[in-house]
Amino acid sequence: MNPRSTRIGIIGSGAIGGFYGLMLARAGFDVHFLLRSEYLAVQEHGLTLDSALHGQVKLAVQAYASAADMPPCDWLLVGAKATNNAELAPLIVQAAAPGAKVVLLQNGLGVEEQLRPALRADMHLLGGLCFICVHRQAPGQIRHQALGAVNLGYHSGPAGHDSAALVEAGAGLFRAAGIDSQAMTDLDQARWQKLVWNVPYNGLSVLLQASTTPLMADVDSRGLVQALMDEVVEGARACGQVLPQGYAAHLLRITEQMPDYWPSMYHDHVHQRPLELQAIYAEPLRRAAAAGCHLPRMQALYQALAFLDRRNLAA
Amino acid sequence: MNPRSTRIGIIGSGAIGGFYGLMLARAGFDVHFLLRSEYLAVQEHGLTLDSALHGQVKLAVQAYASAADMPPCDWLLVGAKATNNAELAPLIVQAAAPGAKVVLLQNGLGVEEQLRPALRADMHLLGGLCFICVHRQAPGQIRHQALGAVNLGYHSGPAGHDSAALVEAGAGLFRAAGIDSQAMTDLDQARWQKLVWNVPYNGLSVLLQASTTPLMADVDSRGLVQALMDEVVEGARACGQVLPQGYAAHLLRITEQMPDYWPSMYHDHVHQRPLELQAIYAEPLRRAAAAGCHLPRMQALYQALAFLDRRNLAA
Repeated sequence: MNPRSTRIGIIGSGAIGGFYGLMLARAGFDVHFLLRSEYLAVQEHGLTLDSALHGQVKLAVQAYASAADMPPCDWLLVGAKATNNAELAPLIVQAAAPGAKVVLLQNGLGVEEQLRPALRADMHLLGGLCFICVHRQAPGQIRHQALGAVNLGYHSGPAGHDSAALVEAGAGLFRAAGIDSQAMTDLDQARWQKLVWNVPYNGLSVLLQASTTPLMADVDSRGLVQALMDEVVEGARACGQVLPQGYAAHLLRITEQMPDYWPSMYHDHVHQRPLELQAIYAEPLRRAAAAGCHLPRMQALYQALAFLDRRNLAA
Repeated sequence: MNPRSTRIGIIGSGAIGGFYGLMLARAGFDVHFLLRSEYLAVQEHGLTLDSALHGQVKLAVQAYASAADMPPCDWLLVGAKATNNAELAPLIVQAAAPGAKVVLLQNGLGVEEQLRPALRADMHLLGGLCFICVHRQAPGQIRHQALGAVNLGYHSGPAGHDSAALVEAGAGLFRAAGIDSQAMTDLDQARWQKLVWNVPYNGLSVLLQASTTPLMADVDSRGLVQALMDEVVEGARACGQVLPQGYAAHLLRITEQMPDYWPSMYHDHVHQRPLELQAIYAEPLRRAAAAGCHLPRMQALYQALAFLDRRNLAA
């Protein structure tokens, strides 16, 4: 793989899109960033990364305010919120070279199913789960606190292609940029695995206005995190996804070792942006219930968050 | 019953103690109020009630800063928080005439069991469940928005007494003061019944910073209230208390017809007072679990509140 001849488009260049796009650009890939509110700042000052693992990185980047101005991209990484997919679909299609690979770097279930009908038949769709502590500090400025791995899986695309090879190629892009990346044989399983983290921490950060360190330090909130994780594992199993033995305990340990972290849903709530409740809560609950499995704590958390989200957006 | 010859002591004269004590005093009973922080204000200005049902009531009352100064009382109504019972027990004993009847006007389970060992053997202990929307507006000033009924049940006392007659006599006091009051044959059942209201509304008012009207207006929070009610009914049944058919639906209707109301737990949280989590959540959960019944939503709510309460008191 020649980085310079691999053209990558970043759709939604917030914390996730900005971080991975910048790392890929730094590794020599031909990266093009589609921006909205941050376009002028990034056009003028480039992107800045303050990373606990990679140090300070500042790069002038190829920034666009319109997808129509972007060259056709072989890979498109979508780092925008899942709540915006309907609106982003035409821009993704516009920036896609024939046979392009679109990677949804989003949490939750059902995001590919939602986007797929809006893509062209020649386009491949993959999902990516990011295990990373990163947030946007200011326009074009990204703070990376810990971790970084991306797990990729294949969703759909034109027949006659080796999907495993495509996923491996995607993982190869990230690895070439110094990022840990695993090809997953089952995207659905990868998505359920990631939910084991997102369901407790994203929701409780909003509900209890608390970051990971205090949530792990208190015996009751820690017990609630664990009980929610167990429910997600149970929901996955009901949907045919048996997660690795001890996976929830593994995530608890990782989170305890992480620096104190405010999940992205907390930032969304504070900035009065809609929460990704559909993909992270409603769709998993729906699928589990359809399989005869009820997850009462997760449903209670979802109902509480739905109330808060509605009130927050109405304010 | 001659009101003037029935001496009633009010221990903890906040919203609940103040309201019922004032109504009894207005009806001619010989009522003595033990106060702490509000003593000077009440001593000087008396008690003021602004009631949607009973109008404006202002009375000079017999106020005390110390239980040692109170005359021996035949009835003692305890309106203080259940979190203070250990500390209140010696004051209750001090103000009790021989054979006194102590009525705990508190929510939750296990409050009588906690207080009983600190009382004298000649004293009777009853529990009272107040269905009322009332709060303290300022020292000595009580605002009564709706309802008012008290359900009484017998807990324990010296042998050789007709406990049903004692409970009926207690209900008679309240009725003589124009307050609806029912004698319950089973205090435990009365306490479980009241929990069907307290568990959802008290906790969610703190967790979601929301009063009853918005909680009932939103489809998700209403669904959560209902699911929590159903769990309490299930816990009661596991503990041998079959609540009246349709009781939860009845409380939902009543709450929808009430004026917008902030439960007392919300006020406790805002004023950084400890929440009554032990009596309202921990003890019912413990009893249900001992009967093999797990109430996951209620437990999740308890864990979330325990986290918030601890953080609030540490702040």
